[in-house]
Amino acid sequence: MRIGVDAMGGDFAPAGLVEGALAAKSLLGNDDRVVLVGDEAVIRRRLDNQAGWEQFIRIEHAGEVIGMDESPVEALRQKPDSSIARLASLAAAGELDAIISAGNTGACVAAAQMRLRRLRGVHRPGIAIITPTYAGPVIMCDVGANVNCRPQHLYQYGLMSSEYSRYICGIEKPRVALLSIGEEDAKGNQLVKETRDLFKNDPELKFVGNIEGRDIFHGACDVVVTEGFVGNVALKLMEGLAEGLFKSTCLELTRSNPDLAGQFEHAITKIREKYDFNEYGGAPLLGVNGICIICHGASRPRGITNAIRVTLDFAKTHINDRITERIAQCRGTLNE
Amino acid sequence: MRIGVDAMGGDFAPAGLVEGALAAKSLLGNDDRVVLVGDEAVIRRRLDNQAGWEQFIRIEHAGEVIGMDESPVEALRQKPDSSIARLASLAAAGELDAIISAGNTGACVAAAQMRLRRLRGVHRPGIAIITPTYAGPVIMCDVGANVNCRPQHLYQYGLMSSEYSRYICGIEKPRVALLSIGEEDAKGNQLVKETRDLFKNDPELKFVGNIEGRDIFHGACDVVVTEGFVGNVALKLMEGLAEGLFKSTCLELTRSNPDLAGQFEHAITKIREKYDFNEYGGAPLLGVNGICIICHGASRPRGITNAIRVTLDFAKTHINDRITERIAQCRGTLNE
Repeated sequence: MRIGVDAMGGDFAPAGLVEGALAAKSLLGNDDRVVLVGDEAVIRRRLDNQAGWEQFIRIEHAGEVIGMDESPVEALRQKPDSSIARLASLAAAGELDAIISAGNTGACVAAAQMRLRRLRGVHRPGIAIITPTYAGPVIMCDVGANVNCRPQHLYQYGLMSSEYSRYICGIEKPRVALLSIGEEDAKGNQLVKETRDLFKNDPELKFVGNIEGRDIFHGACDVVVTEGFVGNVALKLMEGLAEGLFKSTCLELTRSNPDLAGQFEHAITKIREKYDFNEYGGAPLLGVNGICIICHGASRPRGITNAIRVTLDFAKTHINDRITERIAQCRGTLNE
Repeated sequence: MRIGVDAMGGDFAPAGLVEGALAAKSLLGNDDRVVLVGDEAVIRRRLDNQAGWEQFIRIEHAGEVIGMDESPVEALRQKPDSSIARLASLAAAGELDAIISAGNTGACVAAAQMRLRRLRGVHRPGIAIITPTYAGPVIMCDVGANVNCRPQHLYQYGLMSSEYSRYICGIEKPRVALLSIGEEDAKGNQLVKETRDLFKNDPELKFVGNIEGRDIFHGACDVVVTEGFVGNVALKLMEGLAEGLFKSTCLELTRSNPDLAGQFEHAITKIREKYDFNEYGGAPLLGVNGICIICHGASRPRGITNAIRVTLDFAKTHINDRITERIAQCRGTLNE
């Protein structure tokens, strides 16, 4: 397959992206290619001292870059030759089988939605991230694609994420929970209450009820469904808190016992790796008619290599076909 | 002052509540009393072997208890003699100067709103919690009183929390931020965008812009404003993640170096204390015409004692007067 990578997106672009693509060599089959999309001269300069890159990497020139802070829709309109716009266009034209970007998430989501369109029956695509927890990985969807959610959107996030959990995490019957502010049915906002009814009416879905933020880390479920605003706040909160706690721990240890702090660093490095987003590579935008993997803006080369691995797995397991089948089965639930 | 404490609310009721009240003795002035509201026989049994409790504790009987899982408004209607309903009634009748509960948060908020009413000009009360971070304490409001927020409500949370931060945390000019999914003005949902405009139009408020979840832990602001659903999810997520990370750290250390794990426990206990909600006692329901302090359901006796300390500080600093003045000044901003 031909995997397009936005060489200009993210905090470590272009060097980190090129390095991540190079390191993916061993993951690729004979017919697989990574297509780096971005400023050709800049990319070529970084590849030129690498032997044999031409065997598995191609370059597609894109003359513009969408900045991390730009307004997504406006930026796409004003920069048709940006790496993100080009990625989506190439995929829409059938010249790429998948696209990966660590750049402006909003622009990437908008470009994928506009050019790839949605899978049959899907209302809104959602970003499904894998959250590492003490009790194992948990999928959270949506973490930022859609901040104007309706109950039907959340219900479909549950369906799509279940398929993702089944085929990527290998969980036969994923337990789906709805993020709320109390387990009781009476708690939550209107969106949560209406979504819960949709989940309850679907016998195929293993709905385990509403959960609170703290339950995510206790192994209460395999999939957490939430609307994009809440999911994105949650995602970044977890990142900031983990970082803050590690800092506090190191500071406290250095104060009370400097020798211990040194020894502790080794252990903490291991835990950090476990909680490191680079380990999981990237999050698929579930529901688009194609493969679109969104990476963290601060992705290191390892994160990009892992995103390519995720892309290959996504394609191999034909998740989009599973999602389309599942959505078709459930149209009755949504009274369509 | 007369401080009413719900003796029947929370995971450790009634023993933990009684113990917490007893330990507050040293905080109280000659005219201060703790009034334990709940089953008199049960409370008295726990007090009887304590010398001199009558000097600073009184009991008010309440024959019913609202469970943690009950629907707030229904429970209040069906149980007028519950400890929470009685607390609010006693405060409304001028027989208590403050109320504290670790019981059903929704019921406590509803009872306080119904019986104490709101401060002049306040649209909706909000719970303001102090979040400990690496960079110092941060106030987050609202964390669960109001899940149907309008921009005006969020704007007032900013005003009220600023006063709280100024008089309780001693920060002269608190930096107020709005929780969103990106710093840029274009990001966020409709509620965030409209609230931001209100904040920007108030020259008295030190609005530092939108922040993401991770920035809370970097010292980016002193006050974070958010709607109750998001705030409550965030609060519980932080609790669960902190717990999960401590567990993971201990497990990893025990695996790699059991001796180290033992030594590490001492340091982690200190950090845990820093991040322990019991340390902060309770969160005020800002905007009600009275003093209502909401405690965590799992509050230990120390948490209850600290909640009594918070109550005394709240009264001493006349925060409600400050809030009323500030709200009156800002009526123009809301086009009233």
